[in-house]
Amino acid sequence: MGRTVGFVPTMGALHEGHLSLVRHAVAETDVCAVSIFVNPTQFAVGEDLSRYPRPLDQDLQSLAAEGVEAVFIPTPETMYPAGFGTSVVPPPVANRWEGQFRPTHFGGVATVVLKLLQILPAEKTFFGQKDFQQWRVIQQMVADFNVPTEVVGCPIVRDQGGLALSSRNIYLSQEERRRALAISASLCQVQQAYRAGERRAGQLESILGDGLAPLDRIDYAVVVDAHTLEPIQRIVEPAIALVAGHVGKTRLIDNGWLDPHSSEAS
Amino acid sequence: MGRTVGFVPTMGALHEGHLSLVRHAVAETDVCAVSIFVNPTQFAVGEDLSRYPRPLDQDLQSLAAEGVEAVFIPTPETMYPAGFGTSVVPPPVANRWEGQFRPTHFGGVATVVLKLLQILPAEKTFFGQKDFQQWRVIQQMVADFNVPTEVVGCPIVRDQGGLALSSRNIYLSQEERRRALAISASLCQVQQAYRAGERRAGQLESILGDGLAPLDRIDYAVVVDAHTLEPIQRIVEPAIALVAGHVGKTRLIDNGWLDPHSSEAS
Repeated sequence: MGRTVGFVPTMGALHEGHLSLVRHAVAETDVCAVSIFVNPTQFAVGEDLSRYPRPLDQDLQSLAAEGVEAVFIPTPETMYPAGFGTSVVPPPVANRWEGQFRPTHFGGVATVVLKLLQILPAEKTFFGQKDFQQWRVIQQMVADFNVPTEVVGCPIVRDQGGLALSSRNIYLSQEERRRALAISASLCQVQQAYRAGERRAGQLESILGDGLAPLDRIDYAVVVDAHTLEPIQRIVEPAIALVAGHVGKTRLIDNGWLDPHSSEAS
Repeated sequence: MGRTVGFVPTMGALHEGHLSLVRHAVAETDVCAVSIFVNPTQFAVGEDLSRYPRPLDQDLQSLAAEGVEAVFIPTPETMYPAGFGTSVVPPPVANRWEGQFRPTHFGGVATVVLKLLQILPAEKTFFGQKDFQQWRVIQQMVADFNVPTEVVGCPIVRDQGGLALSSRNIYLSQEERRRALAISASLCQVQQAYRAGERRAGQLESILGDGLAPLDRIDYAVVVDAHTLEPIQRIVEPAIALVAGHVGKTRLIDNGWLDPHSSEAS
């Protein structure tokens, strides 16, 4: 039989988080393929599509250094030619949280990932758990549509201050970056309280919200079931603390497992 | 490289129309795979899901006689397990005609065909042109989602009276069958008028409608662009006459090309 393929779909502006996905792919499969495509259909009007960073030369150097053998860089016209008109309705796990604040986002993500997986069939496809809900949406879509790939979620990569790596972090001023650290710090406090025995979701959400005071606006800060992303009263099954908030003009998301078996919760 | 696969998705109750698809697949590819699945999500409440014919033993005998090497007969629970929740929004070519009279139909068809093509990847997938709009919807979905298969549309197979073969024809009484022949007869008259030089869609639709008087109810009887299925004034590009009507409790559809290059129009 042929060699196994590992696929890492990205929007470019690659950082160590993306490169950790690439390293997982290189380690777990024979051939690593990466796509770089700033997918217009997952941005809403007023979001940062036009200013989203596109440092292509630097990205290609980073991927070459990791031993990536194939990089797919389609144009919007290749992905969405004239007459294009079919789309994916994502599963219910897409409805809350990001789905509420970015109503067209996951439809765009699910559609483009489905397309990419048809163009680049892969035994394994790698997503970062920083975009936790996205990972769950894609897992469920792949299962529901019987797409023959395993969707692997890789742990969040953080900088020395704890800030989850994101291509959007370059938007932050030094002062904003300092305030953004409240997100990971607050998630840490929630995980500490969880390890200390707190199982009431409401109590954990209070701790989370208190720690997010330095942010300019919070979209959501919740403790929910890690599989369905539905609200819970108490943590019995694996749970996840999800945060989306604004620092200046930059919207950031982050999350932390509340699950003794997870690598991040330990 | 491996052998090429030809895939024929069906709902069973196989007739010569289905078998003609199988023969195309056997002729054009190395391995022919057939699915038999009465897909519940493409039936609306009140349609004939429960009484749809399911002569499985007879179907399997017919397929064996044609040299089919693989038959996939999933259960509804296999295709739609608990937690299933992703779906396809079909392209605009699905919106009119069948899409208007069966609003949830093409969403169900597109979703199940996408799933089947993930389970049974095939170089070529064969559809009957009797369900003309379905063929166009699947063609467009496959193009839009980059599904790596060629969607082949095979000509309508008719009985000696001209009635387009359909698994639903067994619902017809002898008297109803006689009246149902008005559909193909009327389509023939439209094609004759077209060959005689008539290019006005409205005139051709009048001829079509007049010929359908023996039916109990007509859902639509139109002459439209064969690619977009949008209404036209005059035939310049290939066109198609589409009919859906009721005879007794049975709903029948049929169509005829209005295109000098088509096999059916000649």
